[in-house]
Amino acid sequence: MSTTRAPDPARRNPQVTAAILEAALAMAREDGLARVSIEGIAARAGVGKRTIYRWWPSKGAVVLDAWAQRLEERLHRRLEATQTDDFEADLKLMVKDAWIDTIGDTRGVLASIVAEAQHDPDLAAEFRKRLISPASALVAERIRRAQADGQVAADIDPYRAIELIYAQLYYRLLIVPGPHDEAYVNDVADLAMRGLRP
Amino acid sequence: MSTTRAPDPARRNPQVTAAILEAALAMAREDGLARVSIEGIAARAGVGKRTIYRWWPSKGAVVLDAWAQRLEERLHRRLEATQTDDFEADLKLMVKDAWIDTIGDTRGVLASIVAEAQHDPDLAAEFRKRLISPASALVAERIRRAQADGQVAADIDPYRAIELIYAQLYYRLLIVPGPHDEAYVNDVADLAMRGLRP
Repeated sequence: MSTTRAPDPARRNPQVTAAILEAALAMAREDGLARVSIEGIAARAGVGKRTIYRWWPSKGAVVLDAWAQRLEERLHRRLEATQTDDFEADLKLMVKDAWIDTIGDTRGVLASIVAEAQHDPDLAAEFRKRLISPASALVAERIRRAQADGQVAADIDPYRAIELIYAQLYYRLLIVPGPHDEAYVNDVADLAMRGLRP
Repeated sequence: MSTTRAPDPARRNPQVTAAILEAALAMAREDGLARVSIEGIAARAGVGKRTIYRWWPSKGAVVLDAWAQRLEERLHRRLEATQTDDFEADLKLMVKDAWIDTIGDTRGVLASIVAEAQHDPDLAAEFRKRLISPASALVAERIRRAQADGQVAADIDPYRAIELIYAQLYYRLLIVPGPHDEAYVNDVADLAMRGLRP
């Protein structure tokens, strides 16, 4: 845990940065974040430990950065593209895009970031700022439109609706593991929609 | 991680066991499981490390045992007592009893057990066997009765209903932290019931 913030990432050497992030993500996928070390990332990326500590406060921060970069551009583009007039169809697409097509086989990295965040408040804050908050804002906007269109009950807080939907997926990731396949993500949306309809 | 099973716990010395479990739970509450060590537990309980390793395969297993013993008798007694004719009232009581009155200020210990379980498959299996499965079986039984009484839609899998309800509480514990106060647990039940009613 560190309370210092990393310097402006725009000043990082892009090739060195790419090598570090690639090494961090590969090692987190292979071994889980708990078994990754800054030493290991540095060795695999061919850089010194100090180069990593200059830009990231912890191993969790490097892995989160690597995982988030892989996801966020693609995910947000997809969420923004999900703009039909049918909220239920959009919801199924959003959940499928996020959990099957985008997170996909890096589910274990997500689980290990959430795990590490339980004892690293800085990582937890960065995880929410970088991933949960922007994704939730986009979904909340879509829910508000569905409320205006009469497809979602107007008296439901969009953020509580997001919890009702997405919490199911995290429960299956973290508490009682099971596949996030298409049948399951459709069922997540179906079950949530039973409660969200006017 | 260990693949060996602990010997029959009935053969443990009750006073030594109590001292170890008390030390483990106290340290997990103070510092979180990630910062607890078998050495630390042994020192605080006044026993040797080998005594602990004789009965538990890992620090996670000791803390889980301590936390579960504190909870399970009380929780299951309460769940079994929750048998009115009104499922929605029972649900609110069950969630409140579990998350406010029983888990209460040991929420952080639960979060750290779930975190540790992400990279310790034995601990994950024990957590589900010891806590999730028995509690879910009791709630599923209550849901089936509500289905027979026409208070919950008959076409919903009771275990998916459990996910819909309890996943919200874990999301607030692990992903976007917030208080598990009475207003929140009532809202969890209200939002789930919107989707569970026939």
